[in-house]
Amino acid sequence: MTQDRDRTGGSPSIDRRRFLRAGLAAGGAAIAGGSVAGASESNPDNLPPNVADWSRYLGDGVDARPYGAPSEFESETVRRSVAWLTASTESSVNFTPLHALDGIITPNGLCFERHHGGIAEIDPADHRLMINGLVDRPLIFTMDDIRRFPRENRIYFLECAANSGMEWRGAQLNGCQFTHGMVHCVMYTGVPLRHILNEAGLKPNGKWLLAEGADASAMTRSIPLEKALDDCLVAFAMNGEALRPEQGYPLRLVVPGWEGNMWIKWLRRIEVGDQPWHQREETSKYTDLLPGGKARRFTWEMDVKSVITNPSPQAPINHGKGFTVLTGLAWSGRGTIERVDVTLDGGRNWHPARIDGPSLNKAVHRFYYEFEWDGSPLLLQSRAVDSQGHIQPTKDQLRAVRGTNSIYHNNGIQTWHVQSGGEVENVEVS
Amino acid sequence: MTQDRDRTGGSPSIDRRRFLRAGLAAGGAAIAGGSVAGASESNPDNLPPNVADWSRYLGDGVDARPYGAPSEFESETVRRSVAWLTASTESSVNFTPLHALDGIITPNGLCFERHHGGIAEIDPADHRLMINGLVDRPLIFTMDDIRRFPRENRIYFLECAANSGMEWRGAQLNGCQFTHGMVHCVMYTGVPLRHILNEAGLKPNGKWLLAEGADASAMTRSIPLEKALDDCLVAFAMNGEALRPEQGYPLRLVVPGWEGNMWIKWLRRIEVGDQPWHQREETSKYTDLLPGGKARRFTWEMDVKSVITNPSPQAPINHGKGFTVLTGLAWSGRGTIERVDVTLDGGRNWHPARIDGPSLNKAVHRFYYEFEWDGSPLLLQSRAVDSQGHIQPTKDQLRAVRGTNSIYHNNGIQTWHVQSGGEVENVEVS
Repeated sequence: MTQDRDRTGGSPSIDRRRFLRAGLAAGGAAIAGGSVAGASESNPDNLPPNVADWSRYLGDGVDARPYGAPSEFESETVRRSVAWLTASTESSVNFTPLHALDGIITPNGLCFERHHGGIAEIDPADHRLMINGLVDRPLIFTMDDIRRFPRENRIYFLECAANSGMEWRGAQLNGCQFTHGMVHCVMYTGVPLRHILNEAGLKPNGKWLLAEGADASAMTRSIPLEKALDDCLVAFAMNGEALRPEQGYPLRLVVPGWEGNMWIKWLRRIEVGDQPWHQREETSKYTDLLPGGKARRFTWEMDVKSVITNPSPQAPINHGKGFTVLTGLAWSGRGTIERVDVTLDGGRNWHPARIDGPSLNKAVHRFYYEFEWDGSPLLLQSRAVDSQGHIQPTKDQLRAVRGTNSIYHNNGIQTWHVQSGGEVENVEVS
Repeated sequence: MTQDRDRTGGSPSIDRRRFLRAGLAAGGAAIAGGSVAGASESNPDNLPPNVADWSRYLGDGVDARPYGAPSEFESETVRRSVAWLTASTESSVNFTPLHALDGIITPNGLCFERHHGGIAEIDPADHRLMINGLVDRPLIFTMDDIRRFPRENRIYFLECAANSGMEWRGAQLNGCQFTHGMVHCVMYTGVPLRHILNEAGLKPNGKWLLAEGADASAMTRSIPLEKALDDCLVAFAMNGEALRPEQGYPLRLVVPGWEGNMWIKWLRRIEVGDQPWHQREETSKYTDLLPGGKARRFTWEMDVKSVITNPSPQAPINHGKGFTVLTGLAWSGRGTIERVDVTLDGGRNWHPARIDGPSLNKAVHRFYYEFEWDGSPLLLQSRAVDSQGHIQPTKDQLRAVRGTNSIYHNNGIQTWHVQSGGEVENVEVS
């Protein structure tokens, strides 16, 4: 929104306030009474408001940190794990602190982790990618070889199929970091997988791939060839720099919009076959047990989903009544997000949220809803609609079809209860 | 580019190779003879190519690093400074390792630094932003207050006016990290400055702002009100997380497309006035001395520019002849990049480069040019054209107008000389 100088510079204060209100209303909200609570009038002379210590003394120079780190005051903004959730830390998960972030990019240091055999610490000079099976010419590539193929750059979300999995059986975890923190979104740089497969030469009966990791679990998943030839990447960089060790350094398969366990980390081998392999991680895990005892398998695509990240249990309202910024994330494995609606009263009234920032295919979208809080309790929910028209369901709608045996693919609407003091808790409404 | 399964799965190997070549040609290049040098045939049975140590033992678990860090094998990918360039490290600069990065996002830990009094280490609970001068109501905001205004998310490049400054007097620094590394590109989250100014109420004679930092240098710059009301942000996050200390934590002014010194870090005060202030950093510094003795001032916009990041002096060609990926960055303070052309022979023949990834207003653009290297010496150059039609000039064209007294705003075409052994050096061609 570009504001014309003439419309704001030449009118008295009260008119400008009106303009401000009109301008903000276009974006979906207004600042109450034209004033932000907490802002106060001050000395009108030109003295700085505070001349703090950091203004009095020289700080560190440019050689202090060749590779930077966050401020010490941000030490609580970290990935967190839940000790009781898994038997060991090597086959476990930690969570992105969504409540402390904004925008659509996740910094590399805060991308959630899910390991099946711990973090493989790989020397890239000794790493190889093998292509075998139903190909004309089995090949082995070094990292330098991979860098000689044409590259693409894409911002994609990556969500674990088990994200929000505890919510199948009721509101259990008190914080969006824990209920929804198995999602992150970064820019990947890599080689389209089709270039590498075509280099090996696909045999006519090749219909499936097996992707295999070099970690201690030799994580494996079957992937249909159509997807591989469409938009999969063999990625070596995230957010500009080399992949992080916990994200598959030096090489990871990127499977846009599909569940995270298929994005094989520490990628060492791709076999071409004529049918799926039915490996452990696609039979005993990453299938969805339905009420009748039948299991859904190959539920690859991540469904349309959203969550309010602020306010949320880890990020209560501390400022009391008045103008309040609500924000959250929405995403879909089937495209972009078309709209997000927000309710403050558990679904009685819905209001369109403002999506801000780039709207990119299979990336998270950032939404905002600014409102005047009167201090009464709230039941906050968000509901996303994707570019294919899919609408995020309620948890009860999901359970009616899928029961409560599932762990995976819970994209139900999340409810936060805001108390009059500003505290927030994870609840369910029917 | 989506590839139809039927076009690749049903034909014999040689046809598929032809298809590969045709497909790549559409992207601008072909892999020589259908083979990537270094890839070799291997055991066609299903044994992994190497079962390395990292596949035999459990790695670190999810509690190893609450905030992540790069692999130890990436320890050379760091910001670097040049000791002889400045008298002290507190008023100095370091450089982004452009040659080691890809895509358009710079990870926060590698964003170049430029300080005038060292890094202010600020406790956000004690930080204040004051608005004073020609306003109806001087205001002081806490960080919590700032977070109650509506926010925007934008990916912008930030370039120091002195980037490539040494190149005015000939090719002097051997590496794109040093010649062009005072640029980075991240997603900012912040409040449009117009919201904050309107909250204070602009008086009719307010035409200029003075933005002031809370660092020991109290860095100050005059900014015309038109720009402030157009697209400036008061930002508190970069790439999703809080600003890094060296990038102005907890608050920075974002002045899209304009020279980096105006993006006041550790922002503590904005004064509204009726004329510019002519502070030290906009008179003795950040003006351009022309041959006749006159100085250009207020040269805010960063001109259209590009640089090849690979191959480059710090990233020579190590693989010998054959298929080679050339890549680089292009940007303009006046909009998007319309096209980039690349030459291998010092400007005799120009080839259109492939721009890949999002093309965003006032953000860097990533370009590629894939070619078959015959092992003969090369003179590599890139030339960018922006969405306003501005064409990146040669260094000699710049010098003809501006002489060689300048330090700032050198957007001249950069030349890398590739020797037959693959080594690369910084040279000039006339």
